[in-house]
Amino acid sequence: MLYQTIDILGTVAFAISGVLVAMEKRLDLFGVLIIAFVTAIGGGTLRDLLIGNTPVVWMRDLTYVTTIFIAVVFAIIFASQLKYLRKSLFLFDTIGIGLYTMVGIEKGLQANLSPIMCVALGTMTACFGGVTRDILCNEIPVIFRKEIYATACILGGASYFLLLLLPIPASYAYLTAIFVVIVLRLLAVKFGISLPNIYKKTS
Amino acid sequence: MLYQTIDILGTVAFAISGVLVAMEKRLDLFGVLIIAFVTAIGGGTLRDLLIGNTPVVWMRDLTYVTTIFIAVVFAIIFASQLKYLRKSLFLFDTIGIGLYTMVGIEKGLQANLSPIMCVALGTMTACFGGVTRDILCNEIPVIFRKEIYATACILGGASYFLLLLLPIPASYAYLTAIFVVIVLRLLAVKFGISLPNIYKKTS
Amino acid sequence: MLYQTIDILGTVAFAISGVLVAMEKRLDLFGVLIIAFVTAIGGGTLRDLLIGNTPVVWMRDLTYVTTIFIAVVFAIIFASQLKYLRKSLFLFDTIGIGLYTMVGIEKGLQANLSPIMCVALGTMTACFGGVTRDILCNEIPVIFRKEIYATACILGGASYFLLLLLPIPASYAYLTAIFVVIVLRLLAVKFGISLPNIYKKTS
Repeated sequence: MLYQTIDILGTVAFAISGVLVAMEKRLDLFGVLIIAFVTAIGGGTLRDLLIGNTPVVWMRDLTYVTTIFIAVVFAIIFASQLKYLRKSLFLFDTIGIGLYTMVGIEKGLQANLSPIMCVALGTMTACFGGVTRDILCNEIPVIFRKEIYATACILGGASYFLLLLLPIPASYAYLTAIFVVIVLRLLAVKFGISLPNIYKKTS
Repeated sequence: MLYQTIDILGTVAFAISGVLVAMEKRLDLFGVLIIAFVTAIGGGTLRDLLIGNTPVVWMRDLTYVTTIFIAVVFAIIFASQLKYLRKSLFLFDTIGIGLYTMVGIEKGLQANLSPIMCVALGTMTACFGGVTRDILCNEIPVIFRKEIYATACILGGASYFLLLLLPIPASYAYLTAIFVVIVLRLLAVKFGISLPNIYKKTS
Repeated sequence: MLYQTIDILGTVAFAISGVLVAMEKRLDLFGVLIIAFVTAIGGGTLRDLLIGNTPVVWMRDLTYVTTIFIAVVFAIIFASQLKYLRKSLFLFDTIGIGLYTMVGIEKGLQANLSPIMCVALGTMTACFGGVTRDILCNEIPVIFRKEIYATACILGGASYFLLLLLPIPASYAYLTAIFVVIVLRLLAVKFGISLPNIYKKTS
């Protein structure tokens, strides 16, 4: 129950982030729909393909497509309001990666993957939809910008496996890890934290 | 028998459309072959991966590769004639999406997907090869241009399920739906029909 | 044993080639890691997905990820030395396609594919990682440059099936075919051999 709710919330967050990018590029109605779908299902599709969980989940369960459709209609209608919230795209994208990281890790555990591979799967689930959204909209993918992005997913995912070692319910560890991903990303952007430079300085 | 024939005809149409785009970009022989293959098998590959129908169909059945090879040789030899038919690329691409839409829907039904997912699968089968062709050739994908493209596949696919409700043989419904996709796309381009504008006019 | 060794050596070669391209583009640490991973596992992932060998091999066996990680650390530390070897990228890429061509063919045989499909699978295994590396780094993919690249994989792969007809051990044929791919690519670049022109000369 908790896991399905998180999955649907992530779908909503990514669908809205897709609509916001697509409308900024002034795509037509179909283009907006496509970008919203790709953003919301891209990560889960890659995840399901890699672990051989086919037909991929959104083809078997209409909940996803219905949710995306409703989110798109809602986002288009309220687009002008969302536009005034200048950070809304960043926020929805950040919530999306937090939720999807844990959805991917959960699926990895179900497929008996090792913790390291679960974290990798969670990170790909979280990041791939946004990367595809940005490539299709001709933007530099967020993941390659000088910010902590996938790193937040990796650290959040790792925190889940560490938290599981404590005597707390698994659902607490699950929700805390989502929180860790979101907070890390927010703090990284707020304080301009990025990865260390591996190049020698050239003056 | 009918379904295989339609599948092979779609393969020929898309292979030729791939050759035409690749030659316009003056790629070398290998590049032309690759683009023709990717255009012809891209949609079916995505379809087979999504529903878990692996090894993907063209790896199990040499008919596809042989067909594409013959179509490419034919298209290169007669390229100068095809060039004079200025609309030949558009025509082969349109025939291709009509045929592949129904091939995809048929595979979706075999995988017990719901009608909505079958139409989505048919549309992806039809559109993905052409999108990949255009990305590799550095063209704006046809699907994102201001024309009805995927919409024709969706409406044609939906018409199939409506026609199945009538007391006619399934093969009639199948062929009529292909016809619907092709005619919708031809009419949309001829009369410049596109999707409604979702943006408020800015003067 | 031989096959695993070849697979790991190919992984090392491609991971290093990924690091070299990514550092030339001055990506940050995470970007370098991602490009190295994608280059090293891209071909094998496509191969496993196409034949339905899921979860894909690098998710089930930590050897790959560990190997790539060590190769990346090594390559970053010694990057300044590798930089002076101006042809090092070309060399690692060429060794990589030689090794991966045969890894792919072996997996195709295990999946009972016909020889032609095995060669196609080997060529895709060899080429896809490099193509993805170049697209992500915004370079024209090597495969589309005016050189023999995939053709070397195809000819080397075909030579394997011809060599199997001779009364020699399969492992000899296997190693010779790798050698054929590498030598063909080296000779093609050294002597500027490319595919025949299919366009009529325009003066």
